[in-house]
Amino acid sequence: MLSDTIAAISTAVGESGIAVIRVSGPEAIASVENVFRSKTKLTEADSHTVHYGFIIDPKTDEKLEEVLVSLFRAPRSFTTEDVVEISSHGGIISVKRVMDLLLEQRDIRLAEPGEFTKRAFLNGRIDLSQAEAVIDLIRSKSDRAFSLALKQVEGALSRKIGELRHTVVETLAHIEVNIDYPEHDVESMTTEFIKQKCTLTMQGIDDLLRTASQGKILREGITTAIVGRPNVGKSSLLNALARENKAIVTDIPGTTRDVIEEFVTINHIPLKLLDTAGIRETIDVVEKIGVERSKAAVDEADLILLVLNHAEELHEDEITLLKQLSGRPVIVILNKIDLPQQLDRSEVSRYFADDVIVELSAKTEEGLDHLEEAISKLFFGGELESGDLTYVSNVRHIALLKRAKQSLQDAYEAADAGIPIDIMQIDVRLAWEQLGEVVGDSAPDALIDQIFSQFCLGK
Amino acid sequence: MLSDTIAAISTAVGESGIAVIRVSGPEAIASVENVFRSKTKLTEADSHTVHYGFIIDPKTDEKLEEVLVSLFRAPRSFTTEDVVEISSHGGIISVKRVMDLLLEQRDIRLAEPGEFTKRAFLNGRIDLSQAEAVIDLIRSKSDRAFSLALKQVEGALSRKIGELRHTVVETLAHIEVNIDYPEHDVESMTTEFIKQKCTLTMQGIDDLLRTASQGKILREGITTAIVGRPNVGKSSLLNALARENKAIVTDIPGTTRDVIEEFVTINHIPLKLLDTAGIRETIDVVEKIGVERSKAAVDEADLILLVLNHAEELHEDEITLLKQLSGRPVIVILNKIDLPQQLDRSEVSRYFADDVIVELSAKTEEGLDHLEEAISKLFFGGELESGDLTYVSNVRHIALLKRAKQSLQDAYEAADAGIPIDIMQIDVRLAWEQLGEVVGDSAPDALIDQIFSQFCLGK
Repeated sequence: MLSDTIAAISTAVGESGIAVIRVSGPEAIASVENVFRSKTKLTEADSHTVHYGFIIDPKTDEKLEEVLVSLFRAPRSFTTEDVVEISSHGGIISVKRVMDLLLEQRDIRLAEPGEFTKRAFLNGRIDLSQAEAVIDLIRSKSDRAFSLALKQVEGALSRKIGELRHTVVETLAHIEVNIDYPEHDVESMTTEFIKQKCTLTMQGIDDLLRTASQGKILREGITTAIVGRPNVGKSSLLNALARENKAIVTDIPGTTRDVIEEFVTINHIPLKLLDTAGIRETIDVVEKIGVERSKAAVDEADLILLVLNHAEELHEDEITLLKQLSGRPVIVILNKIDLPQQLDRSEVSRYFADDVIVELSAKTEEGLDHLEEAISKLFFGGELESGDLTYVSNVRHIALLKRAKQSLQDAYEAADAGIPIDIMQIDVRLAWEQLGEVVGDSAPDALIDQIFSQFCLGK
Repeated sequence: MLSDTIAAISTAVGESGIAVIRVSGPEAIASVENVFRSKTKLTEADSHTVHYGFIIDPKTDEKLEEVLVSLFRAPRSFTTEDVVEISSHGGIISVKRVMDLLLEQRDIRLAEPGEFTKRAFLNGRIDLSQAEAVIDLIRSKSDRAFSLALKQVEGALSRKIGELRHTVVETLAHIEVNIDYPEHDVESMTTEFIKQKCTLTMQGIDDLLRTASQGKILREGITTAIVGRPNVGKSSLLNALARENKAIVTDIPGTTRDVIEEFVTINHIPLKLLDTAGIRETIDVVEKIGVERSKAAVDEADLILLVLNHAEELHEDEITLLKQLSGRPVIVILNKIDLPQQLDRSEVSRYFADDVIVELSAKTEEGLDHLEEAISKLFFGGELESGDLTYVSNVRHIALLKRAKQSLQDAYEAADAGIPIDIMQIDVRLAWEQLGEVVGDSAPDALIDQIFSQFCLGK
């Protein structure tokens, strides 16, 4: 199954200076050589070299494109197979004609989404948690999330999981010796040993899980709804928050707005604003509070920013809203502090604690830092964990870690209750497999297929 | 001015496997080396080699991204300067953090649009007509247009212009000898010589201009409006025409619809459908025939596809339309020939010739080839010029060629009228300069700036 050669466009498609098509597999070099005219022969060239030339249609001898071809010989490549990267002029027609010609070649087929990374995994260059981090890199919405993903690509999580599994496998070995040579053992010593090792491993898992919610938020963003009556300044707030983000958009030509505009970053924390289609609609969520969709948006949100007008008295709609949202993760924003105060803050304090009430002016941006602090505090107890923490951000990993912990807990309790040692063995082995599934060691094929199908083409 | 080092993102930005940042200039290698950690030192590496490593922030030693760096030493590069290409994971954050770091480096600044190609031109690797073809490559909307642009990149037009200028400069030399040493000359012989050379050069220019309208159409597409009453089958026709095109869209992930959807290709001829925002609106142009905008669309069109329902009698609105559009470049489509005929074709024939009336069924696609033939015939007299023609497609080139021809015509007539030879010299020299401006030899700086400003960033 791995013996075929695959090709795909690996860059985003659009008007651009450069586009790259990647080819990987045993026939990669020979197949590209067949459609490439250059001073050097690819089949004789060294690994990690670049060659200028033309892609030609061997049937008609027509020059199809002017290209640079980079060569990576197995195993020194992304997939560990022979890899050829064809760098052409950007634009749709260019990549289409080169791809069409490649796919006409015997032995080359279109790659599935994520298939290059999948091969890197199946060929043992990276494990599953590293492969998953590759897609996190591409999808990351903030600098911080990118840094976490990069550490995971480098194997930070893999190493932690490896350490935990090492302890578990020691325990298993101890148990199995005891089962095979019961005469060698003092039963109570084994029980103590198992309890001690289980505790140690559970602590290790807890260390990883401690940062899970932060990791998940950094990776996926805090789902946020902005609500409030008309003219309280929701749009201005959005614009003020979005400024950093807009800078990204205008810095990078060709960035499509809909990819970005739903995200704003506060203190490195990405907020994912609800309703991609139109932020205006989300903003007006209160005006349509009766509408099912708006209610769903508020229900779904991890964070609700309720905007009130500091320069007006509370409206009865707003009192209703304060009551309805009580108990939810809300930050109440008293906007327009640049104008004379009319709102009675104590009325708001009846429903929400002082540290989630923020006074600011979206217009002058006075107090905007208080909002950032309040969000940090609400989600991270004040500040992000820093230093060399390995953040677990992937829900699959979190679920497996929790299950492994439960298995170890079961083994611990069995040991405590004096249950026969071969029963404990089942739980400990289960923990070993569950931890293994994080790095893909004991992951079923269907799961692996499903993970890589989420990738983009050409990766 | 050329002594600084520039950097830009050269691939389209979006979720993708790979993104490429290009750096060019004297400090390119040293500056990237400063933020790159790898087994090999870039400053010592050979040209055309690729190196795996990490981009690190030298201030914090933090790994910012995992990359492949390709090295091209002057003059063997796109710009003829030292060039470094950094290939990173795709995605917005990845390219942003690498670009931000690069731009923090002393000696690196953000490239202007087209600045890499401009340097290739200013450093003499390519001439202006080749540089202009680079942007045509990226923007091309059909395979044929791409092929033409590629030939121009390779210098096909440059060579033709060179030949023409060679003849003109011979003539000039002859004239100048005659001015400097009048005693050497038999005046009438010189006049004959000038007339002969002018004729030769004008014929050469005519050969180039002969394909200009075809070239321009291939490059820019035929601006087309589809008009007709409701329910005559305009949408079905569009869908039938767009099939080939849609295939491109679905083949290439991430292609934004609005880039493509305004173009359909018929017999390799790109039709540019009017009104990007919504083809539906264009289609309903007749329903709003009173509306200024719709009128403008029809006025602006190079081609009007008037769709009538073959299975119904002509409506009086349609008769009005036939009258209004008479004399315009119209193809009348009698759609729905799969249904029993009701329409009296002779009524249509009163306004339009038989070879622009096409019977077809957009639904079954019967007769669609006749439409393709009719369009080919209307614009290309039946078929595209083929073979090794050099198409002139750029309006700037066309205008300069026409002016050069006029200058030569003036010289010819002056010679014919026995006007003193130093007057002729002015016209011949003008022709030489006008031809030179095509390849950038005598192009003013402002023009050059304007041409490159149309490029995308990173090219």
